[in-house]
Amino acid sequence: MRSDTPEGAGTVADLGEFSLIQRLTVGRAQPPSTLLGPGDDAAVVVASDGRVVASTDVLVEGVHFRLDWSTPEQVGHKAVAVNLADVTAMGATPTAVLVGLACPPETTVELVDEITTGMWKEAGRARVGLVGGDIVSSQTLVISVTALGDLQGRAPVLRSGALVGDVVAVCGRLGWSAAGLAVLGRGFRSPVTVVNAHRAPEPPYAAGAQAAMSGATAMIDVSDGLLADLDHIAEASGVAIDVRTDLLEVHQRLVDVGTALGADPRHWVLTGGEDHALAATFPGPGAVPEGWVTIGTVWRGDGITVDGRPYEGPGGWQHWR
Amino acid sequence: MRSDTPEGAGTVADLGEFSLIQRLTVGRAQPPSTLLGPGDDAAVVVASDGRVVASTDVLVEGVHFRLDWSTPEQVGHKAVAVNLADVTAMGATPTAVLVGLACPPETTVELVDEITTGMWKEAGRARVGLVGGDIVSSQTLVISVTALGDLQGRAPVLRSGALVGDVVAVCGRLGWSAAGLAVLGRGFRSPVTVVNAHRAPEPPYAAGAQAAMSGATAMIDVSDGLLADLDHIAEASGVAIDVRTDLLEVHQRLVDVGTALGADPRHWVLTGGEDHALAATFPGPGAVPEGWVTIGTVWRGDGITVDGRPYEGPGGWQHWR
Repeated sequence: MRSDTPEGAGTVADLGEFSLIQRLTVGRAQPPSTLLGPGDDAAVVVASDGRVVASTDVLVEGVHFRLDWSTPEQVGHKAVAVNLADVTAMGATPTAVLVGLACPPETTVELVDEITTGMWKEAGRARVGLVGGDIVSSQTLVISVTALGDLQGRAPVLRSGALVGDVVAVCGRLGWSAAGLAVLGRGFRSPVTVVNAHRAPEPPYAAGAQAAMSGATAMIDVSDGLLADLDHIAEASGVAIDVRTDLLEVHQRLVDVGTALGADPRHWVLTGGEDHALAATFPGPGAVPEGWVTIGTVWRGDGITVDGRPYEGPGGWQHWR
Repeated sequence: MRSDTPEGAGTVADLGEFSLIQRLTVGRAQPPSTLLGPGDDAAVVVASDGRVVASTDVLVEGVHFRLDWSTPEQVGHKAVAVNLADVTAMGATPTAVLVGLACPPETTVELVDEITTGMWKEAGRARVGLVGGDIVSSQTLVISVTALGDLQGRAPVLRSGALVGDVVAVCGRLGWSAAGLAVLGRGFRSPVTVVNAHRAPEPPYAAGAQAAMSGATAMIDVSDGLLADLDHIAEASGVAIDVRTDLLEVHQRLVDVGTALGADPRHWVLTGGEDHALAATFPGPGAVPEGWVTIGTVWRGDGITVDGRPYEGPGGWQHWR
């Protein structure tokens, strides 16, 4: 943790909870979906069709992020992004996040300022409110985020709706976060676009509602890895899914990083998690929306295959069975 | 933490995240407000009037609870209760909770089972769903709960709506949790009703909506202490509040504990937090609903007085200014 406090604000223990919350929330803009923001016992958020979509994720320092690998702002960005991706994967439009922050009393106000700045920025990019939260003392830095979303009259897109004959498509990056993690793990800090894809993923927030409107039958956000997450859909739907590698784009930058590190970039694309792309099934090629890439087909049976065969790469999906 | 595992389930690290979540959620009953429970990317919950009330609280072992003072089930109960109380204090009917659990990998499955059993039981008592969550590894045991609620067409009751001439009333216990904490701090474990009031508070969930329907002008749940929380209302509303001690019930059990410990039980009632009673202001004595006790009046000015004078007891409200 940083110990320099250029603004002289000291530690969170010096400032106290009420002053800290005041400092982190005052003057921040909220979108129209925030009917009542921070400052009362609870927030009030639009849920236009009489339902609300909600998901919680917890990130722990040293487990889900490292402050020597990511800036505090990137950590805040990531904590918000991974949660909004879950709401998006139901076909909902994200509306708000609530943040629980547990941090050591000696944490500098500057660090918390930077984490929450990353949260506010990513919430702004997704056009959602940061509507409430809690800041408490803990030996370990733990960030809990709850994201809310609005289905706007659409049916939620579950993991269990994939049908035999559906096509499988993805929207967003695959393998970039894993490549970035590999780079950081070797002690490098570049190429920065790859490393930042790990530090601060950018899920395609609008693509979830887009897929739902296009008739997606099942959807998930790719947090564990493409094959692992497609297996969640296959299992919930009682179907098999085959992924075709000739349809999977491997970006030249990942090829370059793979060459530099002596790793197979295709493996990152198939099994790397944390990019929070969306993977969905659609009733036919004509239903796949613009910006989505078709990568496979739903078959009778169970489990995941790659080009018709079980995937045998190291760390492949079978490890999650 | 307990190390005995009678069911042979071992630690959370042995079992793994997916199996653990499966074990903690399968076969649990959900209320009708849960449209989609755990198991997908996010939950879907009723928000009948097109708005949702949401609040997050974080509890940390050693800061907010001690596993040598409370059973794991009581800890789970408390984590859910304190969050539902926030939603209730807006005048909403609670609908659901989401739980983020960060625990050391050596935590036994039995301990997590017991914590979540306490959560399910209290959620059941409040008739809300436990609709989702996350379990991750952390050096410190941290429990984050987000509660959702439905205003059912009512306006939210804010802290800022108290008007000069309003009466102040409370519903629920005051001072019991502080008395229980004092008992535990002296190394005692009884009287058990007082100690359990600290371990597992029972907020009056139905009283929030009741107060809103009766025309409450401002409301808060008593988490920091009666005087401190009334001061939040006074400050937000730009008014003064006077509390009359002749109207404040001090239960005989608190008197007995006070006598035994050489403490003033009235001080617990005025400044003890964590009972999560509700305190509200009403436009007149006739508006105070059944089950609520009138304890004071809203005046022109600012700050909190007790019987017309600043409260000078140790740890009184002035410490939060």
